[in-house]
Amino acid sequence: MEYRFSDRVSNLKPSAIREIFKYATDPAVISLSAGNPAPDAFPVDAVRACSEAVLQEQPIDALQYSVTEGLPALREDVAVFLKQHCSIATPGDAVLITSGAEQIMDLLGKSVLNEGDTVVCEEPSFIGALNSFRSYNAVLKGVPMQEDGMDLAKLEEILKTDKRVKFIYTIPNFQNPTGLTTSWEKRRGIYALAQKYNTLILEDNPYGDLRFAGEAIPAIKTLDTEGRVLYAGTFSKTISPGMRVGFAAGGSALIQKMVVCKQGSDVHTNIWSQLVIHRFLHGWDFEKHLKNLQKIYAQKYAVAEKALRETAPLLAFRPIEGGLFLWCTLPDSIPMPAYCKAAVLHKVCVVPGNAFLTDETQPCQSFRINYSSPTNEDLARGIAILGELAAKWPNA
Amino acid sequence: MEYRFSDRVSNLKPSAIREIFKYATDPAVISLSAGNPAPDAFPVDAVRACSEAVLQEQPIDALQYSVTEGLPALREDVAVFLKQHCSIATPGDAVLITSGAEQIMDLLGKSVLNEGDTVVCEEPSFIGALNSFRSYNAVLKGVPMQEDGMDLAKLEEILKTDKRVKFIYTIPNFQNPTGLTTSWEKRRGIYALAQKYNTLILEDNPYGDLRFAGEAIPAIKTLDTEGRVLYAGTFSKTISPGMRVGFAAGGSALIQKMVVCKQGSDVHTNIWSQLVIHRFLHGWDFEKHLKNLQKIYAQKYAVAEKALRETAPLLAFRPIEGGLFLWCTLPDSIPMPAYCKAAVLHKVCVVPGNAFLTDETQPCQSFRINYSSPTNEDLARGIAILGELAAKWPNA
Repeated sequence: MEYRFSDRVSNLKPSAIREIFKYATDPAVISLSAGNPAPDAFPVDAVRACSEAVLQEQPIDALQYSVTEGLPALREDVAVFLKQHCSIATPGDAVLITSGAEQIMDLLGKSVLNEGDTVVCEEPSFIGALNSFRSYNAVLKGVPMQEDGMDLAKLEEILKTDKRVKFIYTIPNFQNPTGLTTSWEKRRGIYALAQKYNTLILEDNPYGDLRFAGEAIPAIKTLDTEGRVLYAGTFSKTISPGMRVGFAAGGSALIQKMVVCKQGSDVHTNIWSQLVIHRFLHGWDFEKHLKNLQKIYAQKYAVAEKALRETAPLLAFRPIEGGLFLWCTLPDSIPMPAYCKAAVLHKVCVVPGNAFLTDETQPCQSFRINYSSPTNEDLARGIAILGELAAKWPNA
Repeated sequence: MEYRFSDRVSNLKPSAIREIFKYATDPAVISLSAGNPAPDAFPVDAVRACSEAVLQEQPIDALQYSVTEGLPALREDVAVFLKQHCSIATPGDAVLITSGAEQIMDLLGKSVLNEGDTVVCEEPSFIGALNSFRSYNAVLKGVPMQEDGMDLAKLEEILKTDKRVKFIYTIPNFQNPTGLTTSWEKRRGIYALAQKYNTLILEDNPYGDLRFAGEAIPAIKTLDTEGRVLYAGTFSKTISPGMRVGFAAGGSALIQKMVVCKQGSDVHTNIWSQLVIHRFLHGWDFEKHLKNLQKIYAQKYAVAEKALRETAPLLAFRPIEGGLFLWCTLPDSIPMPAYCKAAVLHKVCVVPGNAFLTDETQPCQSFRINYSSPTNEDLARGIAILGELAAKWPNA
């Protein structure tokens, strides 16, 4: 039969990244397109031990239905971690365990967005979040990213003129896709503007724990005294994305509404994985584990940086201090879409930068590289192929 | 700060069941209010063995990101099971693995419902699904349940006059909350009406494998030749609800749209649990496991039925042939809401029937009992307390 889709989603397309993944499954192709953590970063032995203990000692807890808010002990772990590790302790806040941080985008969208409402986001930004907001028929307004975060003048211009802004979406640490980090000044500026124009902030911090250089900058959430910031965190980058366990911290009235929405969405997050993560946080040294991850990422990044400098000098990029992504920009003489297609034919996959724009049809000279998933050899070889492709581009 | 919620969800409240759960956590209270599978029905040893094998042999597969559609091997398992076990094999259909069957309600809602569109459902019906549809601002129109399923004349009346019906929602086997099973004639009738008025059917079948008496009736989906029926299944009742693994089978264009929506919702379902279920289906005898479950449920149901007949003769109920629920109806002289509240004070929790209505404010003399979660002793004692409460009701 002919399906009649809702107006919200009829124009929603599979993300460009997913389309590229189809090529990336060819084992001959070097994929620099994923957003996957480094496979050797997974604490496999610890997960096995924790899971065995859970299934031994509390099998029914792990297999039975559970509460929508999330395992109370894990919510407490998250609250303690946020307080001790990140100095986040907004009075009146609550914690919700979600099925990955992506679900936070979905639940916030459902909770606050009427069709036609505006979400202000960084330009470019994380395509998964943008698509989630699009699925509620939100209007996306992008604020260009500068070296130290959003252009605050442009942000204020939007907030001043658009009365339908429901929230500002920002990834302050090692942003996806640019790798940029928002400065402390700009974090304070974003919070001040959100206060002035009375809007929410969705602070998405999946990569903050993957800092391998420079000094940590406090979260915007640390400035929050009134539940204005919904903070999104995840265990996807630090323990396992396959488990789909994320967490939101925000004003309890907002969290309560998100709980009601989650009830009608997936009832609760896989409780077995929640119990395993809870055990991991208690039985293992999480801080030491994070340090180990940071070491792994520093080493991999060094490989990528060296290869870029030595074998791909035509690709401009900004050095990063953490996260999973590098943002490469081509000289004007090389058209980015044609270049990315040619790269696939040369067996290297990257993500065309326009995929991350609020309007994909806009021109863009950049593309995203992931350095964490491939082996060091593939990483160096893939970048060298990209470099050669640029160097040999006709008339480049 | 004062939150401004979307129109869709501003009136959405936590379900009455959840509110009752708060009392149910009191260990002195006998909870007949949950929808939990019997704890002794969980294949704990098999899950442990499968999980150990997965983490031993393919730990990175289990912990890394995976594809939104679901583990290809598990999708194939589901397709084979549906074909061999249920005679479901609509040409052109695809399978999607979801985070529990509840997510199918959410993804279908997002995919097809514009605000103000109509969902036709059984009256009473599963509150989780109703709330999911409500969260897209759908209009719910209830069709009264008769002994053998929906009143088809009433169903046609709605389909004939309401041009905004997007789908019919039905639970043909051991319906939640009534325990009723839709006859083969009515299944054919529902399909014929859906064809005549060109609407979709969402066939939700969480309990079909829990039949302990009578003859199985083919799914509506077996009649489907054109992708008109979206079939929702789950491993929650047969393996573990805590894992949150469900599956949808439907026309591939519809499934594709749901995949795009799932991408923006939770990216993919916990892949560790998907791999464990895949191993379980191959390493263990699933048919034998189902037979064992049916035996467990038959025994528990016998306890409930005996207790109702012997100790609670004022509670009218229809015998069931499977599933998790019994629907009890009070004499007109006992007001149901007051009775359910009094039951809590007597340390027995049930779910007031009006919670399952499209309009909760309508009068209702029934309440739902779950017989699968409590121990046999608690079950018999709980029902006896309910019987005594009815018998001693003033002026009853």
